Amino acid sequence: MKGKLFIVGTGPGAPPIRTFRMVEAIKQSDVIVAYTTYAKLIGDLVDGKEVITARMKEELYRAKVAIQKVQEGKVVSLISSGDPQVYGMASPALEMMCKNNLDLDFEIVPGVTAALAAAAKLGSPLAMDFASISLSDLLVPAEEILHRVKKAAEGDFVIVLYNPINKPLLERAMAIISEYRKPETPVGIVKSAYREDEQVIITNLSDWKRHEGIINMITTMIVGNSRTYTCNGKMITPRGYDRRYNFELNNDS
Amino acid sequence: MKGKLFIVGTGPGAPPIRTFRMVEAIKQSDVIVAYTTYAKLIGDLVDGKEVITARMKEELYRAKVAIQKVQEGKVVSLISSGDPQVYGMASPALEMMCKNNLDLDFEIVPGVTAALAAAAKLGSPLAMDFASISLSDLLVPAEEILHRVKKAAEGDFVIVLYNPINKPLLERAMAIISEYRKPETPVGIVKSAYREDEQVIITNLSDWKRHEGIINMITTMIVGNSRTYTCNGKMITPRGYDRRYNFELNNDS
Repeated sequence: MKGKLFIVGTGPGAPPIRTFRMVEAIKQSDVIVAYTTYAKLIGDLVDGKEVITARMKEELYRAKVAIQKVQEGKVVSLISSGDPQVYGMASPALEMMCKNNLDLDFEIVPGVTAALAAAAKLGSPLAMDFASISLSDLLVPAEEILHRVKKAAEGDFVIVLYNPINKPLLERAMAIISEYRKPETPVGIVKSAYREDEQVIITNLSDWKRHEGIINMITTMIVGNSRTYTCNGKMITPRGYDRRYNFELNNDS
Repeated sequence: MKGKLFIVGTGPGAPPIRTFRMVEAIKQSDVIVAYTTYAKLIGDLVDGKEVITARMKEELYRAKVAIQKVQEGKVVSLISSGDPQVYGMASPALEMMCKNNLDLDFEIVPGVTAALAAAAKLGSPLAMDFASISLSDLLVPAEEILHRVKKAAEGDFVIVLYNPINKPLLERAMAIISEYRKPETPVGIVKSAYREDEQVIITNLSDWKRHEGIINMITTMIVGNSRTYTCNGKMITPRGYDRRYNFELNNDS
Protein backbone atom coordinates (compact mmCIF):
# COMPACT_ATOMS: atom_id res chain seq x y z
CA MET A 1 0.00 0.00 0.00
CA LYS A 2 1.63 3.16 -1.22
CA GLY A 3 0.45 6.58 -0.11
CA LYS A 4 0.39 9.72 -2.19
CA LEU A 5 0.04 13.39 -1.34
CA PHE A 6 -1.93 15.70 -3.60
CA ILE A 7 -1.29 19.35 -2.75
CA VAL A 8 -4.39 20.81 -4.32
CA GLY A 9 -5.68 24.26 -5.19
CA THR A 10 -9.45 24.62 -5.26
CA GLY A 11 -9.50 27.86 -7.21
CA PRO A 12 -11.70 30.67 -5.89
CA GLY A 13 -14.29 28.26 -4.52
CA ALA A 14 -16.95 27.92 -7.20
CA PRO A 15 -17.22 24.52 -8.92
CA PRO A 16 -16.97 26.00 -12.47
CA ILE A 17 -13.54 27.48 -11.72
CA ARG A 18 -12.13 24.18 -10.48
CA THR A 19 -9.71 22.23 -12.66
CA PHE A 20 -10.51 18.69 -13.74
CA ARG A 21 -7.32 17.46 -12.07
CA MET A 22 -8.38 18.98 -8.76
CA VAL A 23 -11.66 17.03 -8.79
CA GLU A 24 -9.84 13.87 -9.87
CA ALA A 25 -7.28 14.22 -7.05
CA ILE A 26 -9.97 14.61 -4.41
CA LYS A 27 -11.95 11.69 -5.82
CA GLN A 28 -8.84 9.47 -5.62
CA SER A 29 -8.11 10.52 -2.03
CA ASP A 30 -8.93 8.60 1.14
CA VAL A 31 -8.25 11.60 3.35
CA ILE A 32 -8.90 15.32 2.89
CA VAL A 33 -7.00 17.81 5.05
CA ALA A 34 -8.30 21.37 4.89
CA TYR A 35 -8.82 24.63 6.69
CA THR A 36 -12.41 24.52 7.96
CA THR A 37 -13.78 27.10 5.51
CA TYR A 38 -12.16 25.47 2.48
CA ALA A 39 -13.53 22.08 3.45
CA LYS A 40 -17.00 23.57 2.97
CA LEU A 41 -16.11 24.76 -0.53
CA ILE A 42 -15.47 21.18 -1.61
CA GLY A 43 -18.27 19.61 0.42
CA ASP A 44 -19.85 18.15 -2.72
CA LEU A 45 -16.71 16.05 -3.42
CA VAL A 46 -15.84 14.52 -0.07
CA ASP A 47 -18.69 12.14 0.72
CA GLY A 48 -17.41 8.99 2.44
CA LYS A 49 -13.90 10.32 2.91
CA GLU A 50 -12.06 11.10 6.11
CA VAL A 51 -12.06 14.90 6.39
CA ILE A 52 -9.62 16.51 8.80
CA THR A 53 -10.15 20.21 9.31
CA ALA A 54 -8.14 22.73 11.25
CA ARG A 55 -8.31 26.42 11.99
CA MET A 56 -6.24 29.22 10.54
CA LYS A 57 -2.67 29.52 11.78
CA GLU A 58 -2.53 25.71 11.89
CA GLU A 59 -0.87 25.26 8.51
CA LEU A 60 2.00 23.22 9.94
CA TYR A 61 -0.40 20.99 11.80
CA ARG A 62 -2.28 20.36 8.56
CA ALA A 63 0.94 19.61 6.67
CA LYS A 64 2.03 17.23 9.43
CA VAL A 65 -1.26 15.33 9.57
CA ALA A 66 -1.36 15.02 5.79
CA ILE A 67 2.18 13.65 5.65
CA GLN A 68 1.55 11.21 8.49
CA LYS A 69 -1.52 9.86 6.69
CA VAL A 70 0.54 9.38 3.50
CA GLN A 71 3.13 7.49 5.58
CA GLU A 72 0.29 5.20 6.68
CA GLY A 73 -0.33 4.41 3.02
CA LYS A 74 -3.26 6.73 2.43
CA VAL A 75 -3.92 8.89 -0.60
CA VAL A 76 -4.34 12.39 0.82
CA SER A 77 -5.46 15.73 -0.61
CA LEU A 78 -4.06 18.72 1.26
CA ILE A 79 -6.26 21.64 0.30
CA SER A 80 -5.52 25.28 -0.38
CA SER A 81 -7.96 27.77 -1.83
CA GLY A 82 -6.79 29.38 -5.07
CA ASP A 83 -3.41 27.95 -6.00
CA PRO A 84 -1.34 25.99 -3.46
CA GLN A 85 1.80 27.99 -4.33
CA VAL A 86 0.52 31.44 -3.52
CA TYR A 87 0.49 31.78 0.26
CA GLY A 88 -0.87 28.21 0.31
CA MET A 89 0.11 24.76 1.54
CA ALA A 90 2.74 23.75 -1.07
CA SER A 91 5.65 25.41 0.71
CA PRO A 92 4.94 24.25 4.28
CA ALA A 93 4.30 20.70 3.01
CA LEU A 94 7.49 20.57 0.94
CA GLU A 95 9.49 22.14 3.75
CA MET A 96 8.21 19.54 6.18
CA MET A 97 9.08 16.69 3.83
CA CYS A 98 12.53 18.17 3.22
CA LYS A 99 13.42 18.81 6.84
CA ASN A 100 12.34 15.30 7.80
CA ASN A 101 14.16 13.65 4.89
CA LEU A 102 10.98 12.16 3.49
CA ASP A 103 10.83 11.09 -0.11
CA LEU A 104 7.07 10.75 -0.53
CA ASP A 105 5.11 10.52 -3.74
CA PHE A 106 3.43 13.87 -4.20
CA GLU A 107 1.80 16.00 -6.89
CA ILE A 108 1.01 19.68 -6.85
CA VAL A 109 -2.31 20.46 -8.55
CA PRO A 110 -2.33 24.13 -9.53
CA GLY A 111 -5.46 26.29 -9.34
CA VAL A 112 -6.77 29.72 -10.25
CA THR A 113 -5.25 32.00 -7.63
CA ALA A 114 -7.20 34.89 -6.08
CA ALA A 115 -5.34 37.49 -8.16
CA LEU A 116 -6.63 35.93 -11.39
CA ALA A 117 -10.15 35.33 -10.05
CA ALA A 118 -10.44 38.91 -8.78
CA ALA A 119 -8.98 40.29 -12.00
CA ALA A 120 -11.52 38.40 -14.11
CA LYS A 121 -14.28 40.17 -12.18
CA LEU A 122 -12.62 43.60 -12.45
CA GLY A 123 -11.85 43.64 -16.19
CA SER A 124 -8.24 43.27 -17.32
CA PRO A 125 -6.08 44.86 -14.63
CA LEU A 126 -3.23 42.32 -14.84
CA ALA A 127 -2.24 42.76 -18.48
CA MET A 128 1.12 44.27 -17.54
CA ASP A 129 3.84 43.17 -15.16
CA PHE A 130 2.43 42.76 -11.67
CA ALA A 131 3.62 42.13 -8.14
CA SER A 132 1.80 39.89 -5.69
CA ILE A 133 2.21 40.94 -2.04
CA SER A 134 0.63 39.47 1.09
CA LEU A 135 -0.15 41.99 3.80
CA SER A 136 -0.24 39.31 6.48
CA ASP A 137 2.50 40.12 8.99
CA LEU A 138 2.11 36.91 11.01
CA LEU A 139 5.20 35.37 9.44
CA VAL A 140 6.88 38.30 7.69
CA PRO A 141 7.89 41.54 9.41
CA ALA A 142 5.76 44.55 8.45
CA GLU A 143 8.82 46.57 7.43
CA GLU A 144 9.87 43.85 4.97
CA ILE A 145 6.38 43.85 3.46
CA LEU A 146 6.35 47.64 3.13
CA HIS A 147 9.80 47.61 1.54
CA ARG A 148 8.39 45.37 -1.18
CA VAL A 149 5.34 47.61 -1.59
CA LYS A 150 7.70 50.56 -2.16
CA LYS A 151 9.80 48.68 -4.72
CA ALA A 152 6.69 47.50 -6.56
CA ALA A 153 5.43 51.09 -6.63
CA GLU A 154 8.79 52.36 -7.90
CA GLY A 155 8.74 49.73 -10.64
CA ASP A 156 5.24 50.77 -11.75
CA PHE A 157 4.02 47.22 -11.25
CA VAL A 158 0.30 46.55 -11.04
CA ILE A 159 0.09 45.57 -7.36
CA VAL A 160 -2.05 42.71 -6.03
CA LEU A 161 -2.59 42.76 -2.28
CA TYR A 162 -3.57 39.49 -0.61
CA ASN A 163 -4.79 39.23 3.00
CA PRO A 164 -5.34 42.94 3.70
CA ILE A 165 -6.58 42.14 7.19
CA ASN A 166 -4.23 44.39 9.17
CA LYS A 167 -5.85 47.80 8.57
CA PRO A 168 -2.97 50.02 9.76
CA LEU A 169 -0.56 48.05 7.57
CA LEU A 170 -2.90 48.34 4.59
CA GLU A 171 -3.15 52.10 5.12
CA ARG A 172 0.63 52.42 5.24
CA ALA A 173 0.94 50.34 2.06
CA MET A 174 -1.62 52.47 0.21
CA ALA A 175 0.09 55.65 1.43
CA ILE A 176 3.41 54.43 -0.01
CA ILE A 177 1.79 53.56 -3.35
CA SER A 178 0.10 56.99 -3.39
CA GLU A 179 3.51 58.67 -3.32
CA TYR A 180 4.18 57.17 -6.75
CA ARG A 181 0.77 57.14 -8.42
CA LYS A 182 -1.98 59.64 -9.19
CA PRO A 183 -4.97 59.84 -6.80
CA GLU A 184 -7.26 58.67 -9.61
CA THR A 185 -5.31 55.42 -10.14
CA PRO A 186 -7.96 52.67 -10.21
CA VAL A 187 -8.15 50.30 -7.26
CA GLY A 188 -10.18 47.10 -7.50
CA ILE A 189 -11.55 45.45 -4.39
CA VAL A 190 -12.98 41.94 -4.71
CA LYS A 191 -14.40 39.96 -1.83
CA SER A 192 -15.41 36.30 -2.22
CA ALA A 193 -14.88 36.16 -5.98
CA TYR A 194 -17.19 33.58 -7.60
CA ARG A 195 -18.96 32.86 -4.31
CA GLU A 196 -22.51 33.71 -3.35
CA ASP A 197 -21.55 36.77 -1.33
CA GLU A 198 -19.21 38.16 -4.01
CA GLN A 199 -18.61 41.91 -3.94
CA VAL A 200 -16.75 43.77 -6.68
CA ILE A 201 -15.85 47.43 -6.33
CA ILE A 202 -13.74 49.69 -8.52
CA THR A 203 -12.56 52.81 -6.73
CA ASN A 204 -9.28 54.73 -6.75
CA LEU A 205 -6.29 55.62 -4.62
CA SER A 206 -7.93 58.69 -3.09
CA ASP A 207 -11.27 57.04 -2.38
CA TRP A 208 -10.60 53.41 -1.46
CA LYS A 209 -11.02 53.99 2.30
CA ARG A 210 -14.74 54.56 1.84
CA HIS A 211 -14.94 50.81 1.15
CA GLU A 212 -12.88 49.64 4.10
CA GLY A 213 -15.96 47.87 5.43
CA ILE A 214 -15.72 45.06 2.88
CA ILE A 215 -11.99 44.56 3.27
CA ASN A 216 -11.08 41.46 5.26
CA MET A 217 -9.06 38.28 5.01
CA ILE A 218 -10.85 37.00 1.91
CA THR A 219 -10.60 40.28 0.02
CA THR A 220 -8.12 40.78 -2.80
CA MET A 221 -7.12 44.29 -3.87
CA ILE A 222 -5.56 45.26 -7.19
CA VAL A 223 -3.96 48.67 -7.61
CA GLY A 224 -3.46 49.73 -11.22
CA ASN A 225 -0.19 50.96 -12.69
CA SER A 226 0.36 54.46 -14.14
CA ARG A 227 -1.55 53.56 -17.33
CA THR A 228 -4.52 51.68 -15.86
CA TYR A 229 -7.92 53.30 -16.50
CA THR A 230 -11.58 52.47 -16.09
CA CYS A 231 -14.06 52.18 -18.94
CA ASN A 232 -17.65 50.91 -18.94
CA GLY A 233 -17.24 50.05 -15.25
CA LYS A 234 -14.20 47.86 -15.88
CA MET A 235 -10.55 48.29 -14.91
CA ILE A 236 -8.22 48.07 -17.91
CA THR A 237 -4.42 47.99 -17.92
CA PRO A 238 -3.15 48.50 -21.47
CA ARG A 239 -0.74 45.83 -22.66
CA GLY A 240 0.88 48.42 -24.92
CA TYR A 241 -0.86 47.85 -28.27
CA ASP A 242 -1.88 51.52 -28.21
CA ARG A 243 1.81 52.40 -28.46
CA ARG A 244 2.07 50.83 -31.92
CA TYR A 245 -1.37 50.13 -33.33
CA ASN A 246 -4.84 51.62 -33.40
CA PHE A 247 -8.05 50.06 -32.17
CA GLU A 248 -10.25 50.97 -35.13
CA LEU A 249 -12.81 48.24 -35.63
CA ASN A 250 -13.96 48.98 -39.15
CA ASN A 251 -10.92 48.78 -41.30
CA ASP A 252 -9.14 45.76 -42.61
CA SER A 253 -5.57 46.60 -41.65
CA MET B 1 -30.13 36.81 -31.45
CA LYS B 2 -27.74 38.09 -28.83
CA GLY B 3 -24.04 37.48 -29.05
CA LYS B 4 -21.66 36.91 -26.20
CA LEU B 5 -17.90 37.05 -25.90
CA PHE B 6 -16.06 34.58 -23.67
CA ILE B 7 -12.47 35.63 -23.08
CA VAL B 8 -11.08 32.27 -22.09
CA GLY B 9 -7.88 30.95 -20.57
CA THR B 10 -7.00 27.37 -21.49
CA GLY B 11 -4.47 26.86 -18.70
CA PRO B 12 -1.11 25.36 -19.64
CA GLY B 13 -2.62 23.21 -22.39
CA ALA B 14 -3.31 19.81 -20.86
CA PRO B 15 -6.98 18.84 -20.48
CA PRO B 16 -6.65 18.01 -16.73
CA ILE B 17 -5.55 21.58 -15.94
CA ARG B 18 -8.52 23.15 -17.71
CA THR B 19 -11.35 24.63 -15.68
CA PHE B 20 -14.90 23.36 -16.07
CA ARG B 21 -16.04 26.84 -17.06
CA MET B 22 -13.49 26.97 -19.85
CA VAL B 23 -14.86 23.77 -21.40
CA GLU B 24 -18.44 24.98 -20.92
CA ALA B 25 -17.66 28.33 -22.60
CA ILE B 26 -16.13 26.66 -25.63
CA LYS B 27 -19.02 24.19 -25.88
CA GLN B 28 -21.50 27.08 -25.87
CA SER B 29 -19.59 28.97 -28.55
CA ASP B 30 -20.37 29.12 -32.26
CA VAL B 31 -16.99 30.62 -33.10
CA ILE B 32 -13.49 30.06 -31.67
CA VAL B 33 -10.81 32.68 -32.25
CA ALA B 34 -7.30 31.58 -31.36
CA TYR B 35 -3.62 31.83 -32.06
CA THR B 36 -2.82 28.85 -34.31
CA THR B 37 -0.88 26.89 -31.66
CA TYR B 38 -3.52 27.37 -28.97
CA ALA B 39 -6.26 26.21 -31.36
CA LYS B 40 -4.48 22.85 -31.45
CA LEU B 41 -4.48 22.63 -27.64
CA ILE B 42 -8.29 22.70 -27.65
CA GLY B 43 -8.75 20.64 -30.78
CA ASP B 44 -10.81 18.06 -28.88
CA LEU B 45 -13.47 20.69 -28.03
CA VAL B 46 -14.08 22.51 -31.29
CA ASP B 47 -15.69 19.94 -33.59
CA GLY B 48 -18.34 21.53 -35.78
CA LYS B 49 -17.46 25.08 -34.75
CA GLU B 50 -16.09 27.89 -36.86
CA VAL B 51 -12.43 28.18 -35.88
CA ILE B 52 -10.56 31.35 -36.83
CA THR B 53 -6.83 31.21 -36.25
CA ALA B 54 -4.18 33.86 -36.59
CA ARG B 55 -0.46 34.12 -36.11
CA MET B 56 1.46 35.76 -33.28
CA LYS B 57 1.56 39.56 -33.29
CA GLU B 58 -2.02 39.52 -34.56
CA GLU B 59 -3.69 39.98 -31.20
CA LEU B 60 -5.62 43.05 -32.29
CA TYR B 61 -6.84 41.25 -35.40
CA ARG B 62 -8.09 38.40 -33.24
CA ALA B 63 -9.83 40.80 -30.84
CA LYS B 64 -11.44 42.60 -33.77
CA VAL B 65 -12.70 39.45 -35.47
CA ALA B 66 -14.08 38.11 -32.18
CA ILE B 67 -15.94 41.34 -31.49
CA GLN B 68 -17.34 41.54 -35.01
CA LYS B 69 -18.68 38.00 -34.69
CA VAL B 70 -20.36 38.90 -31.41
CA GLN B 71 -21.93 41.90 -33.12
CA GLU B 72 -23.35 39.47 -35.68
CA GLY B 73 -25.06 37.65 -32.81
CA LYS B 74 -22.60 34.81 -32.40
CA VAL B 75 -21.32 33.30 -29.16
CA VAL B 76 -17.57 33.54 -29.42
CA SER B 77 -14.64 32.20 -27.38
CA LEU B 78 -11.49 34.28 -27.71
CA ILE B 79 -8.67 32.03 -26.54
CA SER B 80 -5.51 32.68 -24.53
CA SER B 81 -3.23 30.05 -23.13
CA GLY B 82 -2.83 30.19 -19.36
CA ASP B 83 -4.96 33.01 -18.00
CA PRO B 84 -6.38 35.68 -20.32
CA GLN B 85 -5.20 38.47 -17.98
CA VAL B 86 -1.53 37.70 -17.97
CA TYR B 87 -0.09 38.90 -21.29
CA GLY B 88 -3.26 37.46 -22.84
CA MET B 89 -6.32 38.60 -24.79
CA ALA B 90 -8.42 40.20 -22.02
CA SER B 91 -6.77 43.60 -22.23
CA PRO B 92 -6.73 44.03 -26.02
CA ALA B 93 -10.36 42.84 -26.21
CA LEU B 94 -11.55 45.19 -23.46
CA GLU B 95 -9.55 48.06 -24.91
CA MET B 96 -11.10 47.49 -28.31
CA MET B 97 -14.62 47.41 -26.84
CA CYS B 98 -13.90 50.54 -24.82
CA LYS B 99 -12.39 52.60 -27.62
CA ASN B 100 -15.27 51.71 -29.95
CA ASN B 101 -17.94 52.40 -27.33
CA LEU B 102 -19.29 48.88 -27.47
CA ASP B 103 -21.32 47.51 -24.61
CA LEU B 104 -21.21 43.80 -25.42
CA ASP B 105 -22.06 40.90 -23.18
CA PHE B 106 -18.78 39.34 -22.16
CA GLU B 107 -17.29 37.06 -19.53
CA ILE B 108 -13.68 36.49 -18.61
CA VAL B 109 -12.94 32.85 -17.80
CA PRO B 110 -9.75 32.70 -15.74
CA GLY B 111 -7.19 29.92 -16.09
CA VAL B 112 -4.01 28.56 -14.56
CA THR B 113 -1.33 30.96 -15.77
CA ALA B 114 2.15 29.76 -16.79
CA ALA B 115 3.74 30.99 -13.54
CA LEU B 116 1.52 28.63 -11.51
CA ALA B 117 1.86 25.71 -13.92
CA ALA B 118 5.65 26.03 -14.00
CA ALA B 119 5.81 26.45 -10.23
CA ALA B 120 3.79 23.26 -9.67
CA LYS B 121 6.43 21.37 -11.64
CA LEU B 122 9.35 23.02 -9.82
CA GLY B 123 8.20 22.54 -6.20
CA SER B 124 6.98 25.58 -4.26
CA PRO B 125 8.94 28.57 -5.54
CA LEU B 126 6.05 31.05 -5.35
CA ALA B 127 5.26 30.85 -1.64
CA MET B 128 6.46 34.40 -1.01
CA ASP B 129 5.70 37.70 -2.73
CA PHE B 130 6.54 37.46 -6.42
CA ALA B 131 6.79 39.69 -9.46
CA SER B 132 5.65 38.64 -12.91
CA ILE B 133 7.64 40.26 -15.74
CA SER B 134 7.39 39.70 -19.49
CA LEU B 135 10.68 39.98 -21.36
CA SER B 136 8.93 40.62 -24.67
CA ASP B 137 9.99 44.06 -25.87
CA LEU B 138 7.63 44.17 -28.84
CA LEU B 139 5.25 46.52 -27.01
CA VAL B 140 7.25 47.69 -24.00
CA PRO B 141 10.68 49.37 -24.22
CA ALA B 142 13.55 47.19 -23.00
CA GLU B 143 14.71 49.85 -20.54
CA GLU B 144 11.26 49.91 -18.90
CA ILE B 145 11.35 46.13 -18.55
CA LEU B 146 14.84 46.18 -17.04
CA HIS B 147 13.84 48.93 -14.62
CA ARG B 148 11.15 46.60 -13.30
CA VAL B 149 13.60 43.71 -13.09
CA LYS B 150 15.85 45.90 -10.95
CA LYS B 151 13.03 46.97 -8.63
CA ALA B 152 11.86 43.37 -8.26
CA ALA B 153 15.42 42.33 -7.40
CA GLU B 154 15.75 45.18 -4.88
CA GLY B 155 12.48 44.11 -3.25
CA ASP B 156 13.67 40.49 -2.94
CA PHE B 157 10.64 39.31 -4.89
CA VAL B 158 10.62 35.85 -6.38
CA ILE B 159 10.79 36.78 -10.08
CA VAL B 160 8.80 35.04 -12.82
CA LEU B 161 10.01 35.74 -16.34
CA TYR B 162 7.55 35.20 -19.19
CA ASN B 163 8.53 35.18 -22.89
CA PRO B 164 12.32 35.09 -22.47
CA ILE B 165 12.76 35.01 -26.22
CA ASN B 166 15.13 37.97 -26.62
CA LYS B 167 18.41 36.41 -25.45
CA PRO B 168 20.42 39.65 -24.96
CA LEU B 169 17.56 41.11 -22.92
CA LEU B 170 17.33 37.94 -20.82
CA GLU B 171 21.07 38.09 -20.17
CA ARG B 172 20.84 41.71 -19.06
CA ALA B 173 17.91 40.86 -16.79
CA MET B 174 19.77 37.97 -15.17
CA ALA B 175 22.88 40.13 -14.74
CA ILE B 176 20.80 42.74 -12.89
CA ILE B 177 19.26 40.09 -10.63
CA SER B 178 22.73 38.66 -9.97
CA GLU B 179 23.82 41.99 -8.51
CA TYR B 180 21.33 41.44 -5.69
CA ARG B 181 21.33 37.66 -5.20
CA LYS B 182 23.87 34.96 -4.50
CA PRO B 183 25.21 32.90 -7.46
CA GLU B 184 23.64 29.77 -5.95
CA THR B 185 20.11 31.28 -5.96
CA PRO B 186 17.89 28.62 -7.56
CA VAL B 187 16.51 29.27 -11.03
CA GLY B 188 13.73 27.12 -12.43
CA ILE B 189 13.28 26.73 -16.17
CA VAL B 190 10.08 25.10 -17.43
CA LYS B 191 9.25 24.59 -21.08
CA SER B 192 5.84 23.30 -22.21
CA ALA B 193 4.53 22.59 -18.70
CA TYR B 194 1.96 19.77 -18.75
CA ARG B 195 2.50 19.11 -22.45
CA GLU B 196 4.12 16.09 -24.07
CA ASP B 197 7.45 17.80 -24.62
CA GLU B 198 7.63 19.22 -21.08
CA GLN B 199 11.12 20.01 -19.75
CA VAL B 200 11.80 20.99 -16.15
CA ILE B 201 15.24 22.15 -15.03
CA ILE B 202 16.43 23.55 -11.72
CA THR B 203 19.71 25.40 -11.99
CA ASN B 204 21.03 28.60 -10.40
CA LEU B 205 22.06 32.15 -11.16
CA SER B 206 25.64 31.25 -12.02
CA ASP B 207 24.78 28.23 -14.16
CA TRP B 208 21.53 29.00 -15.96
CA LYS B 209 23.21 29.84 -19.29
CA ARG B 210 24.17 26.21 -19.76
CA HIS B 211 20.48 25.60 -20.41
CA GLU B 212 19.92 28.43 -22.86
CA GLY B 213 19.08 25.86 -25.52
CA ILE B 214 15.66 25.12 -24.05
CA ILE B 215 14.72 28.75 -23.49
CA ASN B 216 12.24 30.09 -26.01
CA MET B 217 8.84 31.76 -26.24
CA ILE B 218 7.01 29.00 -24.38
CA THR B 219 9.52 28.78 -21.55
CA THR B 220 8.81 30.24 -18.11
CA MET B 221 11.68 31.02 -15.74
CA ILE B 222 11.39 31.48 -11.97
CA VAL B 223 14.26 33.03 -10.02
CA GLY B 224 14.14 32.39 -6.27
CA ASN B 225 14.38 35.08 -3.61
CA SER B 226 17.19 35.30 -1.03
CA ARG B 227 15.71 32.44 1.01
CA THR B 228 14.79 29.99 -1.78
CA TYR B 229 16.65 26.67 -1.67
CA THR B 230 16.54 23.29 -3.37
CA CYS B 231 15.80 20.01 -1.62
CA ASN B 232 15.13 16.55 -3.07
CA GLY B 233 15.32 18.08 -6.54
CA LYS B 234 12.64 20.64 -5.80
CA MET B 235 12.76 24.42 -5.48
CA ILE B 236 11.34 25.66 -2.17
CA THR B 237 10.69 29.23 -1.09
CA PRO B 238 9.95 29.32 2.63
CA ARG B 239 6.72 31.09 3.56
CA GLY B 240 8.26 32.02 6.91
CA TYR B 241 7.03 29.28 9.24
CA ASP B 242 10.65 28.52 10.07
CA ARG B 243 10.85 31.97 11.66
CA ARG B 244 8.33 31.02 14.33
CA TYR B 245 7.77 27.27 14.39
CA ASN B 246 9.67 24.03 13.93
CA PHE B 247 9.02 21.32 11.39
CA GLU B 248 9.34 18.33 13.72
CA LEU B 249 6.99 15.62 12.53
CA ASN B 250 6.82 13.45 15.61
CA ASN B 251 5.53 15.64 18.36
CA ASP B 252 2.03 16.77 19.09
CA SER B 253 2.61 20.49 19.57
